[in-house]
Amino acid sequence: MPTASYPSRVKLVDVGPRDGLQNEKSPVPAAVKIALVHRLQDAGLREIEVTSFVSPKWVPQMADNAEVMAGIQRKPGVRYSVLTPNLKGFEAARASRPDEVVVFGAASEAFSQKNINCSIAESIERFAPVVEAARAAGIYVRGAISCAVGCPYEGEVAPERVAYVAQLMKQIGVQHVGVADTIGVGTPLKVQRAIEAALQHYALDDVSGHFHDTYGQALANTLAALELGVWQFDTSVAGLGGCPYAKGATGNVATEDVVYMLHGMGIETGINLDKLIDAGVYISDFLGRKTQSRAATAILNKRAG
Amino acid sequence: MPTASYPSRVKLVDVGPRDGLQNEKSPVPAAVKIALVHRLQDAGLREIEVTSFVSPKWVPQMADNAEVMAGIQRKPGVRYSVLTPNLKGFEAARASRPDEVVVFGAASEAFSQKNINCSIAESIERFAPVVEAARAAGIYVRGAISCAVGCPYEGEVAPERVAYVAQLMKQIGVQHVGVADTIGVGTPLKVQRAIEAALQHYALDDVSGHFHDTYGQALANTLAALELGVWQFDTSVAGLGGCPYAKGATGNVATEDVVYMLHGMGIETGINLDKLIDAGVYISDFLGRKTQSRAATAILNKRAG
Repeated sequence: MPTASYPSRVKLVDVGPRDGLQNEKSPVPAAVKIALVHRLQDAGLREIEVTSFVSPKWVPQMADNAEVMAGIQRKPGVRYSVLTPNLKGFEAARASRPDEVVVFGAASEAFSQKNINCSIAESIERFAPVVEAARAAGIYVRGAISCAVGCPYEGEVAPERVAYVAQLMKQIGVQHVGVADTIGVGTPLKVQRAIEAALQHYALDDVSGHFHDTYGQALANTLAALELGVWQFDTSVAGLGGCPYAKGATGNVATEDVVYMLHGMGIETGINLDKLIDAGVYISDFLGRKTQSRAATAILNKRAG
Repeated sequence: MPTASYPSRVKLVDVGPRDGLQNEKSPVPAAVKIALVHRLQDAGLREIEVTSFVSPKWVPQMADNAEVMAGIQRKPGVRYSVLTPNLKGFEAARASRPDEVVVFGAASEAFSQKNINCSIAESIERFAPVVEAARAAGIYVRGAISCAVGCPYEGEVAPERVAYVAQLMKQIGVQHVGVADTIGVGTPLKVQRAIEAALQHYALDDVSGHFHDTYGQALANTLAALELGVWQFDTSVAGLGGCPYAKGATGNVATEDVVYMLHGMGIETGINLDKLIDAGVYISDFLGRKTQSRAATAILNKRAG
């Protein structure tokens, strides 16, 4: 039975405050982001991707990065991570005392060229000084491998490309890799192949899954990853963060939906689903939008009687 | 590897025309239902649950049952099934020459009592003459086991209750059982336990899964069922049929989402996804509503460029 191999405990990293809110047309005020982080940690999240230290010219939504990091009342046992695309960003991030920094690379050459105008290898090489500086400062470094299953420009991405990026990241000292199905096109067996490719270079405890629900596949893909023993996943409260390649479509899988599945399978997360749903209601109300989480929608309907 | 046991081919029964449309406030015209059935069979569906032969007093949406059945230009190799709650309904259905009739029973005593005011055993016993008449007429009989994982009145439903209903259905001659998570509360391991309970009395080829996406779990549950070797599932084009117990919530899993997953896993369905999406657009446009299918939404966004 495959059931024997499921992990008994799963760690979820809520990426809502960063990945979820960075595409909002009207930037969300720092106070709201801080309140969201507080609600997430009160709900039991043990890691939160808070913000990104990128140029405000490119991502004005994250211009308040230092303010948000400074405003959080940190809770013991919770890790706060931030994106750091370059050394300048890292130096700014460092003053905010993140527990973890995130660097990234695509598994698709076409995506890398179109998005950052350089090859995959070049993009990873550019992160080397960031990784070196972070590790010298004792800060944990996570690498996100985007387009790990499919790419909006070149279609299907072979598992070998994921192995290639994982190897490059390993070489520069990245400690953990997240296998990200950025456009949500993955299905269970393809996701397993992508994860197995990352596992060629990283131990099981150093690999996480990051799935988008654009095609409705995220929970099935999560189940498929659990079967390989993967026990760390990125998720986004209320499914914050639409898919930039498909207007109106779902992006990040909703944390609530994943928690509902895991708890139903007897897998611990340390998360209180009701409080998590309240956090999702808080931010959805602020954005004037309905939650993307089906579990939250169903439970809110039940609450309303 | 669990992957070794996945079936290579899956049969989907689209229940949209019946299960999907029977809760519409304004009954859908027979001509639209017929056009939908035609589009589904053109997309490659091999079985379609067309209508229900119940009293129009109770379900006015299906009052056109005979008209719909008569209006379909049947395609060789496609099966047309109808619901028959009693002998009167069966006699009316028989004149419409269905390939299959569906009877039903709940795995929850509370649900049975509240819904049809009798015990589970009594409800199954009432179907005995229908089953007898159908089999005498050479018509295949499928049984739907509702609330197989959870019940809106009594909460979790034990697998033993599913085994009990399956046994009762077997005793009266029902040839196939569908394990239905009517309110969508199931998660992968619970769904596997419910299916295994049905498998105590029915062979693998005579058991299907019917999952609702109310809590976003339907594809994960489908994957879990595939792992047990189940290769037949009920699905509903465009996710037609909201959940009657939670206003605005998703009900039946969308056929498109299931097809997308299966094809991505290399599992054949005989269905053309693009034509299926067109069928979903047709009925969603008629209802003035957006499709509930995430895969269809993503693909329609891509089509729109």
